[in-house]
Amino acid sequence: MELKVKYIDIQEKQDIVFLNVKDAINERIGPGEKIIVRKPNSSYSVSAVLTKSLIKQGYVGISKEKSEHYNHLENDIVEVFPDSNIELVQISKKKMDGKILKKDEITKFVGGIVNGNVDTAMISSFLTITQILGTSQKETEYLTRAMAETGTMIRFDKSPIMDVHSIGGVPGNKTALLTVPIVASSGLFIPKTSSRAITSPAGTADVVEVISPVDFSPDKLKEIVKTTGGCLAWSGVLNLTPADEKIVEVERKLHIDPEPIILASVLSKKYAMGAEFLLIDIPMGDGTKITEWENARKLASNFTDLGSALGMHVDVAVTYGGQPIGNAVGPALEAREALIALERKHSGSLAQKAIGLAAILLELGKKAEVGKGKEMARKILESGKALEKFREIIDAQGGNSEITPDEIPVGKYKEIILSEDSGYITKVNNDTIVKVAKILGTPSDKGAGLVLNYKVGERVEKDEVIVELYAESKERLLSAKRFLAYNRIFQTEGMILKRFPGLKVI
Amino acid sequence: MELKVKYIDIQEKQDIVFLNVKDAINERIGPGEKIIVRKPNSSYSVSAVLTKSLIKQGYVGISKEKSEHYNHLENDIVEVFPDSNIELVQISKKKMDGKILKKDEITKFVGGIVNGNVDTAMISSFLTITQILGTSQKETEYLTRAMAETGTMIRFDKSPIMDVHSIGGVPGNKTALLTVPIVASSGLFIPKTSSRAITSPAGTADVVEVISPVDFSPDKLKEIVKTTGGCLAWSGVLNLTPADEKIVEVERKLHIDPEPIILASVLSKKYAMGAEFLLIDIPMGDGTKITEWENARKLASNFTDLGSALGMHVDVAVTYGGQPIGNAVGPALEAREALIALERKHSGSLAQKAIGLAAILLELGKKAEVGKGKEMARKILESGKALEKFREIIDAQGGNSEITPDEIPVGKYKEIILSEDSGYITKVNNDTIVKVAKILGTPSDKGAGLVLNYKVGERVEKDEVIVELYAESKERLLSAKRFLAYNRIFQTEGMILKRFPGLKVI
Repeated sequence: MELKVKYIDIQEKQDIVFLNVKDAINERIGPGEKIIVRKPNSSYSVSAVLTKSLIKQGYVGISKEKSEHYNHLENDIVEVFPDSNIELVQISKKKMDGKILKKDEITKFVGGIVNGNVDTAMISSFLTITQILGTSQKETEYLTRAMAETGTMIRFDKSPIMDVHSIGGVPGNKTALLTVPIVASSGLFIPKTSSRAITSPAGTADVVEVISPVDFSPDKLKEIVKTTGGCLAWSGVLNLTPADEKIVEVERKLHIDPEPIILASVLSKKYAMGAEFLLIDIPMGDGTKITEWENARKLASNFTDLGSALGMHVDVAVTYGGQPIGNAVGPALEAREALIALERKHSGSLAQKAIGLAAILLELGKKAEVGKGKEMARKILESGKALEKFREIIDAQGGNSEITPDEIPVGKYKEIILSEDSGYITKVNNDTIVKVAKILGTPSDKGAGLVLNYKVGERVEKDEVIVELYAESKERLLSAKRFLAYNRIFQTEGMILKRFPGLKVI
Repeated sequence: MELKVKYIDIQEKQDIVFLNVKDAINERIGPGEKIIVRKPNSSYSVSAVLTKSLIKQGYVGISKEKSEHYNHLENDIVEVFPDSNIELVQISKKKMDGKILKKDEITKFVGGIVNGNVDTAMISSFLTITQILGTSQKETEYLTRAMAETGTMIRFDKSPIMDVHSIGGVPGNKTALLTVPIVASSGLFIPKTSSRAITSPAGTADVVEVISPVDFSPDKLKEIVKTTGGCLAWSGVLNLTPADEKIVEVERKLHIDPEPIILASVLSKKYAMGAEFLLIDIPMGDGTKITEWENARKLASNFTDLGSALGMHVDVAVTYGGQPIGNAVGPALEAREALIALERKHSGSLAQKAIGLAAILLELGKKAEVGKGKEMARKILESGKALEKFREIIDAQGGNSEITPDEIPVGKYKEIILSEDSGYITKVNNDTIVKVAKILGTPSDKGAGLVLNYKVGERVEKDEVIVELYAESKERLLSAKRFLAYNRIFQTEGMILKRFPGLKVI
């Protein structure tokens, strides 16, 4: 039926429009059912909210933003009809029956995810199938290509394009803030985009955002990279893989993360950015996503194989992730720590990891001979060139490039935690750190987080300050302290792990 | 957070409430995310629609009906917070990993479906798992019990309680309108509830509704059955298995119908009604759900096994479903045909099938000796006792019990279709019949539908009236006629099925 557009005040991100109950009955559209809104040259799928009074008969209520996004204005006529996405359903059913999907089927399905014809129930079903039955190599390749090709594709007129990506799972991993300027200093192009935190206390984009904007249009991003050789941008606003965003939303609901989707999600973004040499960092250890060598090896070879199917060279580095990288966890605290490391006042695990990863990229990009990458990376960091390049990039991004570590604002409420025992630290608990950081307010409270004064293998004495907590509200600080009264971050040798009480002798 | 209830005009069936954007941000509730609305003694889960102006800060917008349903009125204070359904997610993940679920896990999950904590994505995932991996016998039993026990359970203080159910798939199956009064005439109790059409042109409830109300409260239904021994009611309003309704909604989106869900869906409703002897009718043949004996046999034994686990005797009758039962398809046309059969003016496949099914029930209920059921059923029908009982039931239901077949209003627009060939009919195409019936407006246009003047094995001459079409609008009638210009309901012997043209000889 044809309806007139009327603006209605709802958030644009919600895929709903309002219909009058009478119009809905006439078209056999039930409450919450999917409908297509079409104008001559475009169409999109949304859910119908039925109302008797919020929208009059003959009108369809659409948010102003959505309306403008699809180029129809108030009082424009659009066609509205029930969505019958039978072809897409058949594709999903074919996969459910254990058959292998063809390229054009996967392309259509991913296209459906992007334009909304594939709804949450269908995405959920597809993810569940993938989790149970897996995908063939070819299917993963087609999925990756389709995810990239239904979004923004960025191409630089320079080669080689380098990139680095960590699959995450280890807290405090601000390594890219060092790796990217080291690599860019060598003259290589490294247009690094990263995500915001989903389940972690801080994503790279959250950390960089403390001192600089991270959201750029594709054109602005190209300009930054052209000027400086690198960038530290948020991938979200670039709309690189819109299908992935919707998939991630459903994965979060189901708490699953099928491996083919991990592979496609990572490599589609890099493929969309035109990466030619990509280094994947797989943190391994207690409390990370990968805890065993066999799984790391398999995942690595799947990344490499998929990369080569996409015409991309993918190297994989398995790194130690059993405790945080460096000592700080939380956006501002991590930005401060990264800056200190760039100023060469810090030589711990953060600098070591950054040098190790940069070395591989320098060798892949033929700036260093094989075996000489580490030396070159260390020189770039220690000479201050990396810091200079970092400031250049932050400046190009419109950030505060002259900021010093002390000037970075951290949470104004602070608490210290004292060690309850003396001894050598045998374990740092990643899970507890992530929980405490969230209670403190990360990632949305930029200044919140914690600093570990000790790491595994170091000796601590009773009543020494072992952790510092930072928060932007007193309540959150207190909650975190309460939580730590019952949960330990550290395990020290000599601590009683479990007591087996003996029989009582009378 | 605590918010004041404000009524907002949206349809009650939609599980959404409105929040002000600022309140949502404070509680980290994103657009469309699940939230819990709680008052001291109850809580429910809904999706949040975020708005800047439709709802002021400090308020939550809820439909008046939903608000009243949950016993909170305008300006009442309710607590609103994000829904974290992690336990339910873990249950689904366990099943996804191929493990067997325990009784309390299935009970919790089904409870979550009913109270909304298990959302569409999770139901979709669960259905997909079930479709791919199946369920154990015990799991199916727990699922069935949980589906019944989370809804209304009806118990009659009489025994035995008989019931009959067709799994559907054959058009024109109005058999229950004969079977129920035949069985009730014998003195047995048969509280028959049925569904409305989902994908078919008419469910039993749609057909009965042409001459009588079908929606009763549990108490009213018990009264009807106590008075007459039977009923022909709609199961929907009784809220027998609320979980099933939500499951069916998602099954429709995915176009799947996993067998364990079919079993649980059917038997949970019968278990909720207290059935002790149940006869399941499995129509088999081209264009039905079951086309092969092996599948019919398996399904039958699964029904029987599940019934026995529930303490219910389940017999299964596989019936011929390769063409419609009787000649009419569509609510009013089927009601008319059933009434004619009850008046003993019709002795075709409808009466035969009804007598066959009733015979089994009479024997199971020990009203007839084994082998004598058919004779007894036929006598009840031919003596007019079944018609009398039918009128009694319709009267108790508040319907028009004295209505004659001619008084039933059918679609005022009528068209006839002439046979294009002469010959014996070798096939009647169920699929085409269902499509034509839908184009004509069934099931919502009660008078719409078609009457077949011929069935398989009969001889038709060219230009004889082979089908009559009925509709309530001219447009629908024309569309159906257009559709039939390219699609055939009948296949006659002698009709050219396919031509293979030979080589052209010059």
